[in-house]
Amino acid sequence: MERRLLDAALDRALDLAERGPLTGGNPRVGCVILDAAGRPLAEGWHRGAGTPHAEAAALAAVPAEHRHRLAGAVAVVTLEPCRHTGRTPPCAAALHAAGVAEVVHAVADPHPAAAGGASWLADHGVTTVDAARAGLDPALVTRAHELLHGWTTAVRRRRPWLLGKTATSLDGRVAAADGTSRWITGPDARAHAHAVRAQVDAIVVGTGTVRADDPALTARTPDGRPAPHQPLRVVVGHREVPDAARVRRGPGEWLHLRTHDLVAVLAELDRRGLRRVLLEGGPTLLSAALRAGLVDELHAYVAPVLLGAGPGAVGDLGITTIADAARWRTRRTDRLGADLLLVATTPSLHPTTQGAA
Amino acid sequence: MERRLLDAALDRALDLAERGPLTGGNPRVGCVILDAAGRPLAEGWHRGAGTPHAEAAALAAVPAEHRHRLAGAVAVVTLEPCRHTGRTPPCAAALHAAGVAEVVHAVADPHPAAAGGASWLADHGVTTVDAARAGLDPALVTRAHELLHGWTTAVRRRRPWLLGKTATSLDGRVAAADGTSRWITGPDARAHAHAVRAQVDAIVVGTGTVRADDPALTARTPDGRPAPHQPLRVVVGHREVPDAARVRRGPGEWLHLRTHDLVAVLAELDRRGLRRVLLEGGPTLLSAALRAGLVDELHAYVAPVLLGAGPGAVGDLGITTIADAARWRTRRTDRLGADLLLVATTPSLHPTTQGAA
Ligand SMILES: NC(=O)c1ccc[n+]([C@@H]2O[C@H](COP(=O)([O-])OP(=O)(O)OC[C@H]3O[C@@H](n4cnc5c(N)ncnc54)[C@H](OP(=O)(O)O)[C@@H]3O)[C@@H](O)[C@H]2O)c1
Ligand SMILES: NC(=O)c1ccc[n+]([C@@H]2O[C@H](COP(=O)([O-])OP(=O)(O)OC[C@H]3O[C@@H](n4cnc5c(N)ncnc54)[C@H](OP(=O)(O)O)[C@@H]3O)[C@@H](O)[C@H]2O)c1
Repeated sequence: MERRLLDAALDRALDLAERGPLTGGNPRVGCVILDAAGRPLAEGWHRGAGTPHAEAAALAAVPAEHRHRLAGAVAVVTLEPCRHTGRTPPCAAALHAAGVAEVVHAVADPHPAAAGGASWLADHGVTTVDAARAGLDPALVTRAHELLHGWTTAVRRRRPWLLGKTATSLDGRVAAADGTSRWITGPDARAHAHAVRAQVDAIVVGTGTVRADDPALTARTPDGRPAPHQPLRVVVGHREVPDAARVRRGPGEWLHLRTHDLVAVLAELDRRGLRRVLLEGGPTLLSAALRAGLVDELHAYVAPVLLGAGPGAVGDLGITTIADAARWRTRRTDRLGADLLLVATTPSLHPTTQGAA
Repeated sequence: MERRLLDAALDRALDLAERGPLTGGNPRVGCVILDAAGRPLAEGWHRGAGTPHAEAAALAAVPAEHRHRLAGAVAVVTLEPCRHTGRTPPCAAALHAAGVAEVVHAVADPHPAAAGGASWLADHGVTTVDAARAGLDPALVTRAHELLHGWTTAVRRRRPWLLGKTATSLDGRVAAADGTSRWITGPDARAHAHAVRAQVDAIVVGTGTVRADDPALTARTPDGRPAPHQPLRVVVGHREVPDAARVRRGPGEWLHLRTHDLVAVLAELDRRGLRRVLLEGGPTLLSAALRAGLVDELHAYVAPVLLGAGPGAVGDLGITTIADAARWRTRRTDRLGADLLLVATTPSLHPTTQGAA
């Protein structure tokens, strides 16, 4: 089929994929089906765990009177179709059964259990096309990799994509000398942080933060109501979580992991199928995660305030001279009211090439 | 004259004013002369100390064959014309002598020696109009006040507008544990900092920075050559400035003030006619200036680096609890390569209303 038509379909499939949730363990995927003549026939996207995959959604969206047009059709998907039976039947088989003759995918499935949808299709006589190899628009292929980067990385490394968060004064302090920290940043930054909570599978804090701040760790909408999606709340450390701690109360589940082994913590979260995890402090836990090289993405909120004293955002990282300091890759900077947000990814991961690996 | 014509002339005068230098002690001023029929006749702006004021430049720009049109003309100026004789003759008298019948100004001259140009003109039969009172576009009047804010504040308070600068890691450190600090920020942020140096009348550092970093304190263009304007280099503190210190070498002047009294330092700079001064560290001097409430504007460069140890941007400010922390007014945030710049003004000054006072 003409590359121009496939590029347009992939572009559309990416727009669809972006409608999916970042949470729930599953990737955000979009699918566009073109008939043999290259005309759009149906589209679909994955709306989250327990709902149909993008390919199944697209197939289901073909009106009965047009089902004959599936014979010889081309499915363009942002991620290689799965071949495993999870909560939904495998997509590779469904596409084949529907009569689809060709499947184009932008990103290979890194999931050991699911990988191989393309080869299964090829074995069953369906033409399978890797978008990059077939010369589709490289910008679209990159966009697909970036869209799925956190998820593919998590699956490949068998541990969640870890976001670290700091909210500091301009001089890098998370609290004043007397320990007070409410609020360093303003309402826009706090609303943003709540929106991020609604986009992760779990929030992790140390017992120190629970005992000092007693945070609820729930995601709230700007009007103060609980967000529809609530992350799992995870407290790490040996000390008890007080009976009255707000983290114990709903909505949703919470978990106390009595360990200092953050690799084990992430392994447990991976076992539960969690792919995006937010580390919300405090400095002790964040420093430990940074020293262990576990933080993939940093969200640094900076307020136009100078404190001059008080605990810093991070403790010792084992860096003594400036040349040893790792330079994070600035991905985005946003102004949030009077505050600033800097989003950066770890220097040790190169998103696009790793994503494309 | 019709307000529409005066608004257009003020808008143009502001554009002209912006061409002037921020340095040199004099304000940035623009002037547009309209003939009695409201047609633009000439324009001018002030190009820096020792050159004609905006009004004189505009008068000089009237072609000989059009000088008769100055009779009954209207001069629209961003700042009230001066009445004193400095390095140039007073503008009020020049406008009157040329036959100008009306003078419209956006900002009143705060300078004790010069103030009163408008009343002098009125005494001599020239109609004088305050733009705000006459109902000209308030956005233009605000723009005029903001353009002159640093200068009017400096003149009114008889001390220079003081810019504080920090270049820190995300955790607010200006150097690593071993004292190394070259370079925390990247080339774009450093080029920006050099451009700012070229826009101040003086740079002030403590003896600590001179002894630790031996900075040249010159303004350089991105290709490494000295900028056309060089600020006065000022070292403050009792310790000697080493004979070999780079700050002693050209281009331009340097000064050693053996004192810890920053009010006296600023008074000395004011005496020299300096209106914009940059404090370039280190933490000791910056903290002292902050504690004394002397910093009017903060330029915080933040690099996507976490250090975990090393000296902070500021020392003790006498703040113990978060409620006591002053919240600066974020004016601008810029991305500079991988780094961020936050420009904020002091919470204790409200630019527009103060500027308009
Ligand atoms: N502004 C912000 O962004 C922000 C965010 C969060 C917190 N804070 C502030 O941070 C302060 C709390 O600081 P914190 O450092 O005590 O909190 P924390 O990092 O949340 O908790 C520290 C505790 O985590 C446990 N832990 C788990 N794994 C660990 C490991 N690998 N290494 C070391 N400890 C581990 C230990 O608990 P056990 O001793 O129980 O084993 C340790 O005492 C509060 O003042 C709070 O306001 C600020
Ligand atoms: N990243 C950045 O933005 C940046 C910028 C500049 C410097 N730095 C770093 O800062 C370090 C130097 O720090 P520093 O704090 O020693 O430098 P500093 O603030 O430049 O110098 C401190 C000295 O200033 C004098 N001083 C003048 N007025 C004072 C007052 N009101 N209160 C106290 N002291 C006053 C004192 O000198 P006397 O004892 O001689 O009287 C004092 O020892 C270096 O490591 C340098 O790399 C970083």
